[in-house]
Amino acid sequence: MAEQEKDAALPSKENFSEWYNDLLLKGEIMDVRYPVKGLYVWFPFGFNIRRNVYDIMRRLLDKDHQETMFPLLIPENEFMKEAEHIKGFEDEVYWVTHGGLTPLDVKLALRPTSETAIYPMYKLWIRSHADLPLKLYQIVNTFRYETKHTRPLIRLREITSFKEAHTVHATWDDAAAQVDEAIRIYTDFYRQLAVPVLASKRPDWDKFPGADYTIATDALMPDGKTLQVGTAHHLGDNFAKTFDITYEDAEGEQVYAHQTCYGVSERSIAALISIHGDDKGLVLPPAVAPVQVVIIPIIFKKAEGVLEACEEVMNKLEAKGIRVKMDASDERPGAKYYKWEMKGVPVRLELGPRDLKNNAAMLARRDTGEKQQVSLDTIVDDVSSMLDDIHDSLYEKAKESIYSRVFDCESLDDVRENLPKGIAKIFWCGNKECGLKLEDDIGAGILGIPTDQEECKGKCPVCGADADTKVYVARTY
Amino acid sequence: MAEQEKDAALPSKENFSEWYNDLLLKGEIMDVRYPVKGLYVWFPFGFNIRRNVYDIMRRLLDKDHQETMFPLLIPENEFMKEAEHIKGFEDEVYWVTHGGLTPLDVKLALRPTSETAIYPMYKLWIRSHADLPLKLYQIVNTFRYETKHTRPLIRLREITSFKEAHTVHATWDDAAAQVDEAIRIYTDFYRQLAVPVLASKRPDWDKFPGADYTIATDALMPDGKTLQVGTAHHLGDNFAKTFDITYEDAEGEQVYAHQTCYGVSERSIAALISIHGDDKGLVLPPAVAPVQVVIIPIIFKKAEGVLEACEEVMNKLEAKGIRVKMDASDERPGAKYYKWEMKGVPVRLELGPRDLKNNAAMLARRDTGEKQQVSLDTIVDDVSSMLDDIHDSLYEKAKESIYSRVFDCESLDDVRENLPKGIAKIFWCGNKECGLKLEDDIGAGILGIPTDQEECKGKCPVCGADADTKVYVARTY
Repeated sequence: MAEQEKDAALPSKENFSEWYNDLLLKGEIMDVRYPVKGLYVWFPFGFNIRRNVYDIMRRLLDKDHQETMFPLLIPENEFMKEAEHIKGFEDEVYWVTHGGLTPLDVKLALRPTSETAIYPMYKLWIRSHADLPLKLYQIVNTFRYETKHTRPLIRLREITSFKEAHTVHATWDDAAAQVDEAIRIYTDFYRQLAVPVLASKRPDWDKFPGADYTIATDALMPDGKTLQVGTAHHLGDNFAKTFDITYEDAEGEQVYAHQTCYGVSERSIAALISIHGDDKGLVLPPAVAPVQVVIIPIIFKKAEGVLEACEEVMNKLEAKGIRVKMDASDERPGAKYYKWEMKGVPVRLELGPRDLKNNAAMLARRDTGEKQQVSLDTIVDDVSSMLDDIHDSLYEKAKESIYSRVFDCESLDDVRENLPKGIAKIFWCGNKECGLKLEDDIGAGILGIPTDQEECKGKCPVCGADADTKVYVARTY
Repeated sequence: MAEQEKDAALPSKENFSEWYNDLLLKGEIMDVRYPVKGLYVWFPFGFNIRRNVYDIMRRLLDKDHQETMFPLLIPENEFMKEAEHIKGFEDEVYWVTHGGLTPLDVKLALRPTSETAIYPMYKLWIRSHADLPLKLYQIVNTFRYETKHTRPLIRLREITSFKEAHTVHATWDDAAAQVDEAIRIYTDFYRQLAVPVLASKRPDWDKFPGADYTIATDALMPDGKTLQVGTAHHLGDNFAKTFDITYEDAEGEQVYAHQTCYGVSERSIAALISIHGDDKGLVLPPAVAPVQVVIIPIIFKKAEGVLEACEEVMNKLEAKGIRVKMDASDERPGAKYYKWEMKGVPVRLELGPRDLKNNAAMLARRDTGEKQQVSLDTIVDDVSSMLDDIHDSLYEKAKESIYSRVFDCESLDDVRENLPKGIAKIFWCGNKECGLKLEDDIGAGILGIPTDQEECKGKCPVCGADADTKVYVARTY
């Protein structure tokens, strides 16, 4: 599609924003030319990555959650029930006002998130202690009328791939444990994308509207900004009171349930392509690559048996469950390399007449560019272990990249100096004023309190007061 | 969920409409209590069926289509480009008019179908002959402001599971061949759901707005009405002209492309549960059953080894890829049978102390109720072949049911007499007036011209003129 625009090289990744936009087109992830601001089209190749990413999510959740689906449209009266929630979303909600030429009696909101669609049903479904815990999730499109600058996969008016889980528990503590479990699931999910994340508890003024508290996971992007790629909210019994979700406890009393919700979106894909990609294009972790191995037959004049040998290797790899593609087109090998490197295929397998004579093939790793000659007798195992190595190596490299960019800072000058590179870690006295002053003074706010916080004592660099809490400070998307 | 409402028995299937509504709740397919007319909630069990059904569809399409995703919201100016298309949909379109409190500059339609969202992009993507054929599909929610009586899975305001394919071809003939291919794919899809369908070409006044012609597949419901469960449209170059989709042909000329589109919705699930279900509840074809085998340990006082034996059988079946569930709860066996019969589980496996002594287990088929004792040594093969038998037997029974309810009719009285039971087949002179008169006179219209039509000669029973075409006449959903 649109071949001529794709021939030019990518801009350097150092110009991250330009590189990212260009990669979306050349890597065939998303087309940004849809005629409505903030709405984008998935190219089939990008959608294939999405399928693999969400299959990983499903496998993780299906252990003890169930998938379901609720309507997109929420009647105004239900949507308006929870006061905090409305305040958080009212500027961002798309409203359906007409069916055909007829004005609707009750306006319908396009869900920005589904609490107010789901919880009226939970009221009907939950009767007794035996119905708890209830853990459901759905993967759906949601809508936010973003007035800020929109950006594909990152800040969207239609989030096409919102995975939202909604759980109900007997006690506040059970719900708190589920929030921790959600963060563990997300960390595992991102590990499978080779994306390390930092988990932190958001400051009170940045929690989900209507929640007791919010814990979020952030990835660190190449430009030093953090990207919030997962959130888990403890809803206490706030929504239960609004939507009258009660259960009969052991004493026969009707008591309010406690709830959580947690979500991940296609930002997961923004993070993985941004963190792993390079100046040649996508670099995909094998778990999500639509094509894990591309076979390039090297065919000269006398190429007897090469195609057959390639097909045999392809069949063997496929039998092992590896996603393989053979590119036997007429293009020059160089053009093929360029194309499949752009698409991030983890392993390229070249096989020509000389290799065949040696009963061998050449493997080239997309991530490091390293080449390795392997025997056709052991090629399936060699490819499998190379795929494993690629995953591990991408993950290690990404961990090194994020951990080396978290800077312990003692003064605001320190913070100012380090923020362009990544995340600052400072003491915080716990006062909102200091958090907001930080935003005013240096244009970057408190991200949150690390969930792995250890005991410590120091001074808040904003007000100088004693502090026993450290926080991440970052520029965010 | 809502256990107390589910204890009462189902109404007899002879009261189809009542039975259907009750089955949706008791079989845990859909909850109809969502507070907006025409919008429903998938129970997790129903959604699990949906996953299996759409996995079958994906496997069929992925052979030579690619999955993708386009935005839900279509700007008014694009939506209004194709005159026929607008006429067909303008009364049914939901309009988004506000983002937050701000009126939008351009109204946005919720897609009723995606031609007008997709084709502006096809214009950008298609340049030359080498880009053709292009075959994409998406599985998305679509919206119709239905003013008729809504019904879960059948007539919805949010179709949550619309699989729509959109293909582009060089010539009209290529597109026509693709329409035939679509009908073959759908017939195969429905065969895997054990649902036989009839394919027929819709009369001109019933084709898709903007199409050259439409071929559709229909299932026959227990009440004798047909349910349109798949449509394939030849769009000619009508949309290509509207959206300026051209390609460079071999002579270097820019010429208009030819297009098709074809769709299937959750009506597929309405058909399969309606056709196979009985007075005890769901009867699910093994291919789509969330649980294919339920194991009931029969535990008396001395039940040594029974649970262990059940677990061993469960592990063996799971290793074979069979979806198994063990119900070792405290309920009486009778209550368990009732519950899993309602859920349509194809095979029940009972194993008690006496069975264990005989190295055997009892298999019970959901579809026929037949029981069969099998040896634990051969149980995996026995269960596998029973699952295959159940599929075949459901399909044969459904074929017998539909074919025995297609009635060759010579007169309108004949038609009137047979229509309550199923489909009438009559000669048709080809005049629209006769088609419409049929609707006026007997309240049932021409469904379409069978695609397997053979040469024949007769008289149109409406006007008496010579006719060489037969048509299906039916009451439809």
